[in-house]
Amino acid sequence: MVDALAEAEGPRQRRAIAKAITLLESTRADHRAQADELLTALLPRTGRSFRLGISGVPGVGKSTFIETLGLYLIDRGHRVAVLTIDPSSTVSGGSILGDKTRMEKLSVHERAYIRPSPSSGTLGGVAEKTREAMLVCEAAGYDIVIVETVGVGQSETAVSGMTDMFVLLQLPNAGDDLQAIKKGVMELADLVVINKADIDPDAATRAQAQITSAMRLFGHHGNPAHSHVVHGAETAQRQWQPRVMQSSALQGTGIDAFWQAVTQFRNMQAASGKLAARREKQALAWMWERIDAGLKQAFRQHPSVRELLPRAVAQVAAGTLPASTAARNLLSAQAGQARPPHENTDTTPLPEQAP
Amino acid sequence: MVDALAEAEGPRQRRAIAKAITLLESTRADHRAQADELLTALLPRTGRSFRLGISGVPGVGKSTFIETLGLYLIDRGHRVAVLTIDPSSTVSGGSILGDKTRMEKLSVHERAYIRPSPSSGTLGGVAEKTREAMLVCEAAGYDIVIVETVGVGQSETAVSGMTDMFVLLQLPNAGDDLQAIKKGVMELADLVVINKADIDPDAATRAQAQITSAMRLFGHHGNPAHSHVVHGAETAQRQWQPRVMQSSALQGTGIDAFWQAVTQFRNMQAASGKLAARREKQALAWMWERIDAGLKQAFRQHPSVRELLPRAVAQVAAGTLPASTAARNLLSAQAGQARPPHENTDTTPLPEQAP
Repeated sequence: MVDALAEAEGPRQRRAIAKAITLLESTRADHRAQADELLTALLPRTGRSFRLGISGVPGVGKSTFIETLGLYLIDRGHRVAVLTIDPSSTVSGGSILGDKTRMEKLSVHERAYIRPSPSSGTLGGVAEKTREAMLVCEAAGYDIVIVETVGVGQSETAVSGMTDMFVLLQLPNAGDDLQAIKKGVMELADLVVINKADIDPDAATRAQAQITSAMRLFGHHGNPAHSHVVHGAETAQRQWQPRVMQSSALQGTGIDAFWQAVTQFRNMQAASGKLAARREKQALAWMWERIDAGLKQAFRQHPSVRELLPRAVAQVAAGTLPASTAARNLLSAQAGQARPPHENTDTTPLPEQAP
Repeated sequence: MVDALAEAEGPRQRRAIAKAITLLESTRADHRAQADELLTALLPRTGRSFRLGISGVPGVGKSTFIETLGLYLIDRGHRVAVLTIDPSSTVSGGSILGDKTRMEKLSVHERAYIRPSPSSGTLGGVAEKTREAMLVCEAAGYDIVIVETVGVGQSETAVSGMTDMFVLLQLPNAGDDLQAIKKGVMELADLVVINKADIDPDAATRAQAQITSAMRLFGHHGNPAHSHVVHGAETAQRQWQPRVMQSSALQGTGIDAFWQAVTQFRNMQAASGKLAARREKQALAWMWERIDAGLKQAFRQHPSVRELLPRAVAQVAAGTLPASTAARNLLSAQAGQARPPHENTDTTPLPEQAP
């Protein structure tokens, strides 16, 4: 499968990608083992793409923006993969972003690969499949991977945690930027694009000014308290300052300036070592996130825990069992079946209390 | 020990409280078992106090505010316990809040009990000890328990998660409210007090107006999008709206109005059932938080994990091992020693891929 993936672009490679991603999404243990082997074999061929996260509320025009951008990039010799994390699928098993026909021209282009969101699972599980699909696309030679999500819940954090640059699309009105600040999404953004700017140019310009000043106050990059203590004037210039731009994807305006900004960001981050540092941090965070999820799943599936948990929850809720005692009892029950409870080896005597 | 705690106030009860809290803070397994028994025995006597969380940046005047408030409450027949979560102790083992002499009059008053922060441990561990100490104080008849923290890191979330009402102290300048909004602390606040208002009355009044409008925009309570969809005009009146007040603890002004607001909040929350619902939610969240912490600790202490983890971390960081594969390998290693790896029972065949 690795060879087929590494082949020149064409129907055979496309089938190999689809097959690999299907394998990654399988829940069968033997498939999972194969998938792990495949990922490890692919790894040396991955990491050479630029990973671009794009988010925004429903109606902001993500599909049109990504289609216009994708076709622009293909024109310039790139190969573009678009992956999607649809947080609604993690709740309902349905999908509001999974429809390929949203990007009619891009989806049929031979130099583009569009994969809808895994159709169900926890957000963590969906994010994991998307990260793995990203590696498959990279191994197949896609040099721009776009990961799209709708601005709901924690999915922006997940996308920002797996991409090199996180872009937030906003509408040219002042309402949704406050929500983005409130939810901490603005802090994640390396770049904000006010899309559909043509609808109301005055509002777009006002929004641009408002968001720029909000990002200076709230943003992690632009926080004056940071930059000013840590960096001198010279290094500050080489450091990316988050920007706010305008575009109208429908009319195709602003895409060129957008891509110039992305390229500038990429070059600065690569030169300063921040790109590599961000990926290393993301990989380790991803490992720990999956370990935590695995530990919780094993806990909840343990027979003793399943037996004792409902009563413990009821007692804690009713206030008849201390929460910390309930936690210790359940942890002992899980450990007890497998091995003797973890004895504390500290045997210093209890100190005498203060008067 | 339960009997001594339940005794009338006096030196014997005070010693029993100190002894109980020391027992709760011990790391010895046999002490922990005794502590769990003690907590369970105390539980029927707990929950009758009002739990007030107070936070603010260093220099905002927390100690003076709490001392003035504590003496005011004692004058009105209450018994007041003050517990502290010092986030600096969880990093350095040192303490910036642990000094009893900060509240000279309150600390020697027989109707007050002041306990500094546990001196080391993770924030979760320190929070657990503080929650348990709170139960001990309640069982001993303290009817107002104040939990104080300095506005650093995640400690505000911990305190807001164990109290009935969370109060944020602010200085009368416009700088720190932006930080509080950014960190999401403003959203936690049921009440904001602009302390040291006497220093600059004009600035205090401006800050009050600014924070009030910021809370309307960002606050969970005051969010118009919420209240307006869910509640009619009649119920909205019975619902607490977060407030911004002024005080000067040093001059003793504003404390009376503050306590009236707290009492009004408490009565409204009790009447609407929100007080009980908040405590139930806190207890269950606490249980799961302790379970998660216990699972992570057991994982990190497992011999196979300890052996394999350093290499896995290095490989993931270097990009030679996929993060999700590393997570699965480590989870299998932990499970393997105790029992055979958790086989997936789903045996549906791998679906044929889309073309």
